[in-house]
Amino acid sequence: MNSKTSAQSKTVLTDIVLPPDTNYHGTIFGGNVMAYIDKVASIAAMRHARSQVVTASSDSLDFISPIRTGEAICLEGYVSYTRKTSMEVFVKVEAEDLITGERRLTATSYLTFVALDENGKPKVVPQIIPESEEEKWHYSGAEERYEIRRKRRKQAKDREKQ
Amino acid sequence: MNSKTSAQSKTVLTDIVLPPDTNYHGTIFGGNVMAYIDKVASIAAMRHARSQVVTASSDSLDFISPIRTGEAICLEGYVSYTRKTSMEVFVKVEAEDLITGERRLTATSYLTFVALDENGKPKVVPQIIPESEEEKWHYSGAEERYEIRRKRRKQAKDREKQ
Amino acid sequence: MNSKTSAQSKTVLTDIVLPPDTNYHGTIFGGNVMAYIDKVASIAAMRHARSQVVTASSDSLDFISPIRTGEAICLEGYVSYTRKTSMEVFVKVEAEDLITGERRLTATSYLTFVALDENGKPKVVPQIIPESEEEKWHYSGAEERYEIRRKRRKQAKDREKQ
Amino acid sequence: MNSKTSAQSKTVLTDIVLPPDTNYHGTIFGGNVMAYIDKVASIAAMRHARSQVVTASSDSLDFISPIRTGEAICLEGYVSYTRKTSMEVFVKVEAEDLITGERRLTATSYLTFVALDENGKPKVVPQIIPESEEEKWHYSGAEERYEIRRKRRKQAKDREKQ
Amino acid sequence: MNSKTSAQSKTVLTDIVLPPDTNYHGTIFGGNVMAYIDKVASIAAMRHARSQVVTASSDSLDFISPIRTGEAICLEGYVSYTRKTSMEVFVKVEAEDLITGERRLTATSYLTFVALDENGKPKVVPQIIPESEEEKWHYSGAEERYEIRRKRRKQAKDREKQ
Amino acid sequence: MNSKTSAQSKTVLTDIVLPPDTNYHGTIFGGNVMAYIDKVASIAAMRHARSQVVTASSDSLDFISPIRTGEAICLEGYVSYTRKTSMEVFVKVEAEDLITGERRLTATSYLTFVALDENGKPKVVPQIIPESEEEKWHYSGAEERYEIRRKRRKQAKDREKQ
Repeated sequence: MNSKTSAQSKTVLTDIVLPPDTNYHGTIFGGNVMAYIDKVASIAAMRHARSQVVTASSDSLDFISPIRTGEAICLEGYVSYTRKTSMEVFVKVEAEDLITGERRLTATSYLTFVALDENGKPKVVPQIIPESEEEKWHYSGAEERYEIRRKRRKQAKDREKQ
Repeated sequence: MNSKTSAQSKTVLTDIVLPPDTNYHGTIFGGNVMAYIDKVASIAAMRHARSQVVTASSDSLDFISPIRTGEAICLEGYVSYTRKTSMEVFVKVEAEDLITGERRLTATSYLTFVALDENGKPKVVPQIIPESEEEKWHYSGAEERYEIRRKRRKQAKDREKQ
Repeated sequence: MNSKTSAQSKTVLTDIVLPPDTNYHGTIFGGNVMAYIDKVASIAAMRHARSQVVTASSDSLDFISPIRTGEAICLEGYVSYTRKTSMEVFVKVEAEDLITGERRLTATSYLTFVALDENGKPKVVPQIIPESEEEKWHYSGAEERYEIRRKRRKQAKDREKQ
Repeated sequence: MNSKTSAQSKTVLTDIVLPPDTNYHGTIFGGNVMAYIDKVASIAAMRHARSQVVTASSDSLDFISPIRTGEAICLEGYVSYTRKTSMEVFVKVEAEDLITGERRLTATSYLTFVALDENGKPKVVPQIIPESEEEKWHYSGAEERYEIRRKRRKQAKDREKQ
Repeated sequence: MNSKTSAQSKTVLTDIVLPPDTNYHGTIFGGNVMAYIDKVASIAAMRHARSQVVTASSDSLDFISPIRTGEAICLEGYVSYTRKTSMEVFVKVEAEDLITGERRLTATSYLTFVALDENGKPKVVPQIIPESEEEKWHYSGAEERYEIRRKRRKQAKDREKQ
Repeated sequence: MNSKTSAQSKTVLTDIVLPPDTNYHGTIFGGNVMAYIDKVASIAAMRHARSQVVTASSDSLDFISPIRTGEAICLEGYVSYTRKTSMEVFVKVEAEDLITGERRLTATSYLTFVALDENGKPKVVPQIIPESEEEKWHYSGAEERYEIRRKRRKQAKDREKQ
């Protein structure tokens, strides 16, 4: 198996937001949304690589609308791009008011993962094949996002050496 | 809105099984599977009724194969039958070995829920329209399952009175 | 030790229901009650078998009255019947309003467990000796419940093969 | 209702110790044992006072033997002494090796609670009547323990003022 | 109170990484690190604004080195920049091997928060005064990071409209 | 390394109190405060001993003022005294009203820990060197507290033998 579609790694998670997940205004903590995103993205990456994975980075994340106690949090993620041993996963988070049925975009995010073999060493992953319009759109911008991350890491390392 | 399809209430939840969810043999506690099932079924029922709901009953549940630490638990549920103010939800649980991709049936279950209005009183729900073969199969046996539950409740009440 | 009384496996668990356990109406999620039931039943089964155990099935479960935030959930379970390597455990759940002292029946349930030796293989368990009236009542109906479960499992397997 | 027996507030909690509750050596964190003790003691105090309560103090606590992953933690508590609006609760914690059935004393503790009315003000509680030998033993030493706590609080307040 | 130093909002959190926080390789999930970061940053922002706050965004995040089960996670955060009603918080995460004392940089991150008044409306915050070299370094780059976030949000909104 | 200062083991933990941590009156359960105290004290003890540790005892604990939902709980602990293989840790807990900035003393406590080597046997720890006035004050009273604990343990053991 040398290549796989984005659809093959698609992962869906639906949950209800409860009081311990929320702040004084009854809206979910940003950190809890981030933890959900990483969980869905990890499963998608494992489904693509069929191996253990480790989170390498999370791109910036804007919280567009809050999710309130009693609403559903709906996440969907899939592998959007691959390099030799790393994968980029796209995750979309929506809030669903379970009473009205209204859905609002909460956040979208790109995370990167490295596939690991049984000894914890990086492992080659299948190439990704985008199929839908949305998958192709994410794929087409992936090389540019990769370059931005590479520069960012380099700058951080240079600063550390000083 | 007087009727809705089963597909409109379909709810998916994927999660990873972690050490605190598992017993000495590294397999998930039956009780944790039951809690996941109730969560997915509750969301499906709220999506159908577009109201708060309360669990009325859970039918018998056989654990066909265990889920181990590090595997994914994959749940899918939808409303399979409706009466005036109550809904029957069918939930299917599968284990996915994330490394091999193998999926095994873990359990299936029927739960019933009552829809509640803002005052906590039973509320009329839309009628269900089964579409797929599987949905129709669950729908066709629902009246019989309803009768079994009704008798069971009656027997339990009679015993209490003695 | 070839036989043991039901009283020897009796297990009691009292807890307070907190906001994260409850839905919009402030009553405990059905799934959380199921998880408590499985925990108490597992301990009772381990106390009888003095071995690891795995949940094989849960019989149907009717939620007779809800438990509200701030109330106590009171569970009591014991082994009600045994076969060669499996046990049936009866669990009773009550809600206690801690301010008035009122107790209400919430649910009762039968679960079955298989005892496992160190290699995860089924292991012979001591025979059960019912003593009280209640224990004898559960014991007397156990063979019939066993037959229902056996048929249920067979039907499920037959359907799978199709 | 002007008085109540210790037996009327008796509260039992049995649970299994899981990996997240334990340290590197696979034994339960002392802090988790303390949290269990406070929970059982709170329920016992509420059962006696039939009101909300707040923890006022915990006496010293020695961990006599550890509890390991997979073992049961068994707690039992009851009101051992009362003053006008406060109660002393005695709690005993044992570890049970579920495979061998061996039980070991882990810790014993006295906690004090104040009963609160609907406005959060201290509320008069029923007097306690010790019945068993053990209850009488705890009751007989309670006045002395009360004096030690009173002095301790006074010393702490004096130091604060300096 | 028209201005405050970064030191006045400094927030420290030290915790131990336990099995439920970690993946198959015994290293903490990236999502759990993100949730810790958001918690520390939220407290720092509340200490600066002395009001409720909501997470608006998280900048990109690189996981430089993992944290293993049994190690300590050490977080430190403070407000690094302010605009009228929003704050940028800098958080640094280190792993500490509690046995050797070795500390490794795990991640650094910038998050932005909006201060909210009692009605949930944006509220003016005190201006920040950086004092240490490190604080001044973060402050000096803040305007540029602000512009990047502003453009990012604009692009995301434009894409949505299409 | 034969000796270390109290400052070298200082451990700080700041967290927000959420609904599941609190009782009916919205104040944190005493047991949760105890669990936080043990966590901070454990990390301080591990930082001093650079080894695994086990909680041996907790001295008495008075809850001077409650912590409410939405407030911060602020803990600080350090090793205050050492014997050959055991350490006494002092922990101070304060509540912080995040909106007003007011801080109130909630509780102070002494706990003792034993350092363990890789085989779980007691291990010699570095001697403590108190530096600040506060550290010297705790150090000066430590021998007396040690004697009280020793007598307490002896009495408990004598009672058990009877």
